Amino acid sequence: MCEANAYVAVNGSEDLVMESLDRVEPQPDGAFLLVDIFGKQREITGAIQEIDLLNKRIVVVRSEA
Amino acid sequence: MCEANAYVAVNGSEDLVMESLDRVEPQPDGAFLLVDIFGKQREITGAIQEIDLLNKRIVVVRSEA
Repeated sequence: MCEANAYVAVNGSEDLVMESLDRVEPQPDGAFLLVDIFGKQREITGAIQEIDLLNKRIVVVRSEA
Repeated sequence: MCEANAYVAVNGSEDLVMESLDRVEPQPDGAFLLVDIFGKQREITGAIQEIDLLNKRIVVVRSEA
């Protein structure tokens, strides 16, 4: 399995917001919908900072806390 | 290995632009730098449409041909 972890970076520190990430879907309002392999969903606001597939990291810089 | 393939979608059709993708790095000018596991780099313009880790697909909608 090749799922990754999603992190949100706020003020330079990263928080793990979702493990076993299946996919990331940009939303019309600029947010990102995260969906894990179990179907759990979480929407986060921000901009993609990094997609690192080998290290299984997707980092979103949050624009609002 | 969990590298993915990168596709660019233009006018509804998708073209494979890079295989064995290691990482995607947003650039200050809004472009995305794609880097494969061999270190080969390619910069593309557009917006991320989809990050599908289970199907190993990253799709960028190109804003200019």
